[in-house]
Amino acid sequence: MNPKSSFFLVWMAMKHKISVFEERIEEAVKGVLKGYEPRTLFIPAEYVLSIGGKRLRPLLTLMAADLFGKESDEVMDAALAVEIFHNFSLVHDDLMDNADLRRGYPTLHKRWSENSAILSGDALLIEAYRYIAKVPADLLPDILALFTTTAMHICEGQQYDMDFEQRLDVTEEEYLKMIRLKTAVLIGAALKIGALIARAPVEDADLLYQFGIHLGLAFQLKDDLLDVYGNPETFGKKIGGDILCNKKTFLLIRSLKNAGHAEREALQRWLTATEYDPDEKIGFVKKIYDQLNLKFVVENLIEKYYLASLDFLSLVNIPDHQKRDLINLSENLMYREK
Amino acid sequence: MNPKSSFFLVWMAMKHKISVFEERIEEAVKGVLKGYEPRTLFIPAEYVLSIGGKRLRPLLTLMAADLFGKESDEVMDAALAVEIFHNFSLVHDDLMDNADLRRGYPTLHKRWSENSAILSGDALLIEAYRYIAKVPADLLPDILALFTTTAMHICEGQQYDMDFEQRLDVTEEEYLKMIRLKTAVLIGAALKIGALIARAPVEDADLLYQFGIHLGLAFQLKDDLLDVYGNPETFGKKIGGDILCNKKTFLLIRSLKNAGHAEREALQRWLTATEYDPDEKIGFVKKIYDQLNLKFVVENLIEKYYLASLDFLSLVNIPDHQKRDLINLSENLMYREK
Repeated sequence: MNPKSSFFLVWMAMKHKISVFEERIEEAVKGVLKGYEPRTLFIPAEYVLSIGGKRLRPLLTLMAADLFGKESDEVMDAALAVEIFHNFSLVHDDLMDNADLRRGYPTLHKRWSENSAILSGDALLIEAYRYIAKVPADLLPDILALFTTTAMHICEGQQYDMDFEQRLDVTEEEYLKMIRLKTAVLIGAALKIGALIARAPVEDADLLYQFGIHLGLAFQLKDDLLDVYGNPETFGKKIGGDILCNKKTFLLIRSLKNAGHAEREALQRWLTATEYDPDEKIGFVKKIYDQLNLKFVVENLIEKYYLASLDFLSLVNIPDHQKRDLINLSENLMYREK
Repeated sequence: MNPKSSFFLVWMAMKHKISVFEERIEEAVKGVLKGYEPRTLFIPAEYVLSIGGKRLRPLLTLMAADLFGKESDEVMDAALAVEIFHNFSLVHDDLMDNADLRRGYPTLHKRWSENSAILSGDALLIEAYRYIAKVPADLLPDILALFTTTAMHICEGQQYDMDFEQRLDVTEEEYLKMIRLKTAVLIGAALKIGALIARAPVEDADLLYQFGIHLGLAFQLKDDLLDVYGNPETFGKKIGGDILCNKKTFLLIRSLKNAGHAEREALQRWLTATEYDPDEKIGFVKKIYDQLNLKFVVENLIEKYYLASLDFLSLVNIPDHQKRDLINLSENLMYREK
């Protein structure tokens, strides 16, 4: 077999492994909350879990454990804990942001009610703890502490995000701290938990955490780009949603800093306006982004974090060829269209 | 010293012990969330914790541990976990019920915003887990499982409570199941966790759990009575609040069952009316309760559960005189005015 076809086989095996993991996650998610009563509490929670999304976080938990040769029900339980937690945070965030759509489907509070979103969200958070509690007892204190610290960081990140909506002076540094808390730490924790369950050395688990943090930063910046430049057919949310609720994304912060005097004043008027045509606002803001070439600027920033993440991954004490599926997955995330 | 004065001294010591526990709890609560950032997330959460209430649940945790000779920081951490969790549930329940007042103060969502109530409530729930995770590692799996099962039961109870508001055919049995989930299990868990940390035999911990369940049922029935017959000066919430939101309390369920034909029809009209004078509605419903002598009926039911709780406590394998402070506290709860 020549090297080229051998590479192809390895690549096929990787693809296959990720697909197998993804299928297993879908199967396992179906069992979550199964048969719990009252149905009025759990049907909305099951709905959110069932409409999927990328399942990125549980996939990372499985892949991190796999990197250290571990595959087991315990790993899946921890992966589910991360996914259930993620869904809790989406339900409450969507309610707080008053979002209509998630993954192309009506958000929980639109489909049922605000009270449903509050309480079914709470139930998801508690269920996440039930799953994380299934890790081996000797690992429980450390993993539980990581899980709880991560969960609190995500609340803190969401609070900063909401606070920033009321401010015009948010700095790029503040923004990066916010997305680290709101998005990146859960990607890092998903990986680290997988590594810990697989009894990886603590240094390697920490390197995977840092890999995840930087991947998460790149991931969120990509998300912000897609919100403006994504394909409405595949994005699953309304294009320009961040612009409409004055989210202080990197794009907007950089615009407020670098736009010319007249453009900045116009931008500030749009940000404080209470009555306007949504499409007109999106159009105006996007024009400023284009003038400042911010798509390119942010793509470069994404590249920077992506390369930093790969540096951390390269330091993990495992033969490089075993990391290929993680690298492959990361690359797909960077070049994704939704 | 004659027996009478000796009894007096024991009683004084008991009073003293409870006061000391109460002071310690207040001190310890002040340290919760201290210095966490962002303040916009944690000031509302600290507010809820600071306005107090009876601190019944953490007190029960300390007293249960004390029954088995244990007093330590670990017990206090677990007691705080229970109290923090309880405050989380109040914040979200008050938001879902759209309540204006709690313990005589504006509710979190009235003082700040609905989003604050959602997210600061979430932060309290997560912080509760941070505290429960501080129990000794060998006890963590069992205590964590109890904590999570209890937390989920409380969500289930709240969902039943809300579902019942839309129904006219709730049975007494359904009501008792609902208050068991929503209120009694946390009282039981508070006691059992204290006993487990004190390394009590599992049978005794379970008996204390049952003591708490029955005490909790009596406690909630008393709460329902106070909502109608309490003193507006001391109750801390609006008198008749349950009536206004059509809470299916034991009083209302029994009325719908036992009222005469004309009264039942009038009652049903009040329950489905969308525009009315609140005081008139409260007055009408209360008149029916009075006609059916329901204050007396519910007081008897409270007595029944209270006596059942004492039966469980009497079976705990500890000298009876050491149980006097728990009995004393329970009695005060039954005859409380707020």
